[in-house]
Amino acid sequence: MGKERPLILLSNDDGVEAKGLHELIKTLRPIADLIVVAPDGPRSGASGAITSEYPLRCRPVRQEPGLIIYKCTGTPVDCVKLALHNFVPRRPDMVIGGINHGDNSSVNVHYSGTMGVVIEGCLKQIPSVGFSLCDHSADADFSAALPYVGRITEEVLQNGLPAGTCLNVNIPLGKQLNGVRICRQTAGVWTNEFATVANPRGGECYWLTGVYQNHEPEAEDTDHWALEHGYVAITPTRIDVTDYGIMDKLNGWNWEV
Amino acid sequence: MGKERPLILLSNDDGVEAKGLHELIKTLRPIADLIVVAPDGPRSGASGAITSEYPLRCRPVRQEPGLIIYKCTGTPVDCVKLALHNFVPRRPDMVIGGINHGDNSSVNVHYSGTMGVVIEGCLKQIPSVGFSLCDHSADADFSAALPYVGRITEEVLQNGLPAGTCLNVNIPLGKQLNGVRICRQTAGVWTNEFATVANPRGGECYWLTGVYQNHEPEAEDTDHWALEHGYVAITPTRIDVTDYGIMDKLNGWNWEV
Repeated sequence: MGKERPLILLSNDDGVEAKGLHELIKTLRPIADLIVVAPDGPRSGASGAITSEYPLRCRPVRQEPGLIIYKCTGTPVDCVKLALHNFVPRRPDMVIGGINHGDNSSVNVHYSGTMGVVIEGCLKQIPSVGFSLCDHSADADFSAALPYVGRITEEVLQNGLPAGTCLNVNIPLGKQLNGVRICRQTAGVWTNEFATVANPRGGECYWLTGVYQNHEPEAEDTDHWALEHGYVAITPTRIDVTDYGIMDKLNGWNWEV
Repeated sequence: MGKERPLILLSNDDGVEAKGLHELIKTLRPIADLIVVAPDGPRSGASGAITSEYPLRCRPVRQEPGLIIYKCTGTPVDCVKLALHNFVPRRPDMVIGGINHGDNSSVNVHYSGTMGVVIEGCLKQIPSVGFSLCDHSADADFSAALPYVGRITEEVLQNGLPAGTCLNVNIPLGKQLNGVRICRQTAGVWTNEFATVANPRGGECYWLTGVYQNHEPEAEDTDHWALEHGYVAITPTRIDVTDYGIMDKLNGWNWEV
């Protein structure tokens, strides 16, 4: 009589040992069987990178009823590809990335390994969601986030998502959150992106850092505004990145060689 | 009386020695001053990846009037960020990625280091274009592509591009091309993505490969169709990946915790 338990594929970009991944596992075990294929170390900022120059290694590190965890030498996207090709017993009902230590809102979506996981799941036509907490610390407190992670996962399991659309969920810090807002990606830019550091072997080198400049801090429909006002920001995200609105104009340009 | 010569920032994901980069340099030198900051080796499939865990090294390898070339230990996006932060004498008039050895059409845009370059330029609000040739070989023949590379660059220098929009240009093989088509991103999926290879130290490992399956081979408005019919495919690409069309629907879901 009972419906088969859902199967969810998890990965992340903070690596198989990250607290955010294990908080995600703890939250989802009551509602689904889980297969985890995660990088063997941190891959923050891996975006949608894939590894084609050399082969990957991958092995199970924990196996219990309803849960199996693999660690893998590749990128977050490699993990999803390899899981779907080699390790899943059947097509998963969802792909979830996270819970990331640090936000992936606004332009950061383009650099995000968490969203690399999610976009890969979506490319494979599986409903896919990324969760990120606005705290980079290794021992971040996920407790207020977890009820939202559970609710959003259950809602997507029930309703599915349209082909080509995935969800980017960012969760603010705070003991008491104000609920969910459906948002658009904030426009902004990173500035002052490098610190110059002395190379002990001579010369200088450059370490990525930066200051994020929000171009529209007052826009109440953006993910940044939601996060700054204590809301969970759900930004629906497309995998078709075509700019349809400019096609007519471009057809009028002179392309003759 | 004369207008200042344009300044164009170039990078790629095949590395500073790749033929495609040097064909691009050769084509653009008559029309612009060039600053090149490229990875010190291949970074295919780097997508929008950035390096935050360790510092980058970067040094000039060639300097002539109107041309300076740096090589850098980072990803394609690192190269663009570092160039704009440390090495450009003024804000460039364009950012160009390529010419890539291999196509970046359809879903491959998400994995593309070439488009990582272009999206980064666009995030920095500079008109940005990526060029890719449908030939992975190191000694690919770019001769039919170059007139289009020049024409498209000149057209973008003259007209600019709207904020948040960049161009993904894919060029088919062939001595005689049929002109330009403004396209949308083809829907499709990679299948059979891994070859299992023996690890000489024991066990198995997994090497990325795959077969691309086009979900809409007859759709004449797609980039794949254009390439298969001998046209240069220009796919306008957005950096705002929000799926606006689904927001109303998502607002009706149950997000209460």
